[in-house]
Amino acid sequence: MLALAASPLGIRTLVVDGAADACAGQVTELVVADWFDDAALDAFAARVDVVTFDFENVPAAVAERLAGKVSVFPNPRALSVAQDRLSEKTLFRECGLGTPEFAPVDTRDDLVRAVERIGAPAVLKTRRLGYDGKGQFRLKTPADIDAAWAALGDAAGQVGLILEAFVPFEREVSVVAVRGRDGAFRSWPLTRNWHVDGVLSLSLAPAPGSTDELERAANAHARTVAEALDYVGVFALELFVCNGKLLGNEMAPRVHNSGHWTIEGAHTSQFENHVRAVLGLPLGGTGVRGPSAMLNFIGEMPAMAPVLEVADGHWHDYGKEARPGRKVGHATVCAPDAGSLREKLAVVGEGLGRMAQVDPGIDALL
Amino acid sequence: MLALAASPLGIRTLVVDGAADACAGQVTELVVADWFDDAALDAFAARVDVVTFDFENVPAAVAERLAGKVSVFPNPRALSVAQDRLSEKTLFRECGLGTPEFAPVDTRDDLVRAVERIGAPAVLKTRRLGYDGKGQFRLKTPADIDAAWAALGDAAGQVGLILEAFVPFEREVSVVAVRGRDGAFRSWPLTRNWHVDGVLSLSLAPAPGSTDELERAANAHARTVAEALDYVGVFALELFVCNGKLLGNEMAPRVHNSGHWTIEGAHTSQFENHVRAVLGLPLGGTGVRGPSAMLNFIGEMPAMAPVLEVADGHWHDYGKEARPGRKVGHATVCAPDAGSLREKLAVVGEGLGRMAQVDPGIDALL
Ligand SMILES: Nc1ncnc2c1ncn2[C@@H]1O[C@H](COP(=O)(O)OP(=O)(O)OP(=O)(O)O)[C@@H](O)[C@H]1O
Ligand SMILES: Nc1ncnc2c1ncn2[C@@H]1O[C@H](COP(=O)(O)OP(=O)(O)OP(=O)(O)O)[C@@H](O)[C@H]1O
Repeated sequence: MLALAASPLGIRTLVVDGAADACAGQVTELVVADWFDDAALDAFAARVDVVTFDFENVPAAVAERLAGKVSVFPNPRALSVAQDRLSEKTLFRECGLGTPEFAPVDTRDDLVRAVERIGAPAVLKTRRLGYDGKGQFRLKTPADIDAAWAALGDAAGQVGLILEAFVPFEREVSVVAVRGRDGAFRSWPLTRNWHVDGVLSLSLAPAPGSTDELERAANAHARTVAEALDYVGVFALELFVCNGKLLGNEMAPRVHNSGHWTIEGAHTSQFENHVRAVLGLPLGGTGVRGPSAMLNFIGEMPAMAPVLEVADGHWHDYGKEARPGRKVGHATVCAPDAGSLREKLAVVGEGLGRMAQVDPGIDALL
Repeated sequence: MLALAASPLGIRTLVVDGAADACAGQVTELVVADWFDDAALDAFAARVDVVTFDFENVPAAVAERLAGKVSVFPNPRALSVAQDRLSEKTLFRECGLGTPEFAPVDTRDDLVRAVERIGAPAVLKTRRLGYDGKGQFRLKTPADIDAAWAALGDAAGQVGLILEAFVPFEREVSVVAVRGRDGAFRSWPLTRNWHVDGVLSLSLAPAPGSTDELERAANAHARTVAEALDYVGVFALELFVCNGKLLGNEMAPRVHNSGHWTIEGAHTSQFENHVRAVLGLPLGGTGVRGPSAMLNFIGEMPAMAPVLEVADGHWHDYGKEARPGRKVGHATVCAPDAGSLREKLAVVGEGLGRMAQVDPGIDALL
């Protein structure tokens, strides 16, 4: 999606990926190389002006190496902070953004002490290399400590662990925002998100039920965090709304699934603004055309007709092989107002046989 | 632009072009082959399910050959009628759409007789293989017959000639429309166009100053012509408004420059709907998000900042080498209403140093 957005700007892209069937190869030139193949990476760097990422788990050391040769945005330090749930939550607090209670966990004893302090329910997560709810274990009671350690204890040495209080949030929202090389900052309207099994299922934007005050607070947090990291590019700040207050969950240092609706729903998409930002071009407007809903397709693509048939319904097939749990595509439905978005969601949910996926959105738009 | 639109639909594209640097090669796989290389064309046909065109001068014989092996849309007959100004104007009249007076011209004597009948001013055009005002000679008076014959007489044998009355039109408009394999028909709002030296310079949509009646009449003509040809895909019907009446100028059997604004300005772009149509998928809505203006860039791209800086300003660099007279890109500016589009056009025209290009649009939006 970044390559598709770069093309009309006259920007040629070159993608490096370890997989020969990486889907970017369908729309741009692909260099197949392992991230730790220094010679391949140096050859890649020699062919480009700017390097960026659409995956946050690129090892920070690889980003550092590239940064010695060519401009890299976001900068490797920002990437490395955002890769580690402990450092990112610590930064959030330094920036005045509350978070669920948390404690680092390196040993089984740490876990016992952390559960004593934080209580249950809680979530044990890997500090690094998690995404889409992978590398997480939910503890309903302290009795789950053994099971949690059995599941993730092995990972403690490699990627570290963190225990977080499981917060009884009312809503999940994200700020998708962009910061330019010159410090210019813009954010799209707050997006409301619903996850199923830790994976994003549905997004609505602008987030129904958000107040101006909440929106302003979320934006201010996003800006403060981005400035603290001298972040350049698009990022998402995932937030829980808990007792009407914002708590920081995590920062994704990249274009984000909860910003996919911006392709059709906003004046400039997150992908185009990321390209503009990392190249030092003027940022585009983040205003919206009306409300949008984004449905994720996990595992396999459904039939496309119900989405194509609805006015302002948009289909995104990533051209990936179907595989359980894999994000293979999404659909976005735009409408002039909340009432008609609701009706369209009902039609699409019915047509796809996915009412359970759209129902929370239909309720929220009431 | 077709390949870019096909990608999110999960449609893989393969492009055949005689030029190794054809710009589609930047975003999809390119087969470099001459249209008359039968073996290459057969190999190409064996790799695809459906063939279509984004250039109307593909020889109809080539389309016929492909149609013997694979589905071809639009059908070769439609392509061949639209390639010949004489047959297309004859069809327009059969369909009840008036045209400027015209006469076929094969010899100098034909030209003399045609000028006697039609009068001057008139335009002598090649019947086939003309585009962007190429292959045309304007006769101000009958005294220009010699100059006209000197300019185009040589082409008479190869591509045929046609003399047309030069009509003192008030406005130029086009209907960009799409017809599906099942006969479904949709059109985008009428677009108003301004040409400079026979080349499209500026488009505004929805066409300011058009009445519902004119819009309905234009749509009805487009539909009748498409049905007569059993046309499948996107096409443009270029019309003159002359004494408040519509006259048919030509039909472009392809996505059209005057429909480029649909990428950002409409619910579904002409490119996506062309892909949907030729593949037999449901057509997307052709409603608009507000008024749009499209500026063509001929010869070379200007500085991009003035377009990127305006809210809802969009840049399209085709990645072509600069060359005098060549269409190398365009910009589209969208706005919520005519007044703000006017203001944005003034800002962009000023920023680009191209007031002359935007002024007709600014006047029309008053
Ligand atoms: N502390 C928590 N309290 C309540 N719910 C949580 C907590 N942590 C995670 N969740 C739930 O699990 C989802 C995924 O968690 P998280 O964002 O940590 O995972 P991830 O693997 O980094 O996901 P991604 O990067 O795809 O957003 C959250 O969006 C939320 O629904
Ligand atoms: N008979 C005519 N009377 C008045 N103006 C004309 C006439 N024919 C052509 N023109 C002017 O020249 C422009 C280009 O002519 P025409 O559409 O025939 O050319 P073309 O080469 O087929 O262009 P394209 O395919 O790029 O639209 C028209 O849009 C119009 O402005």
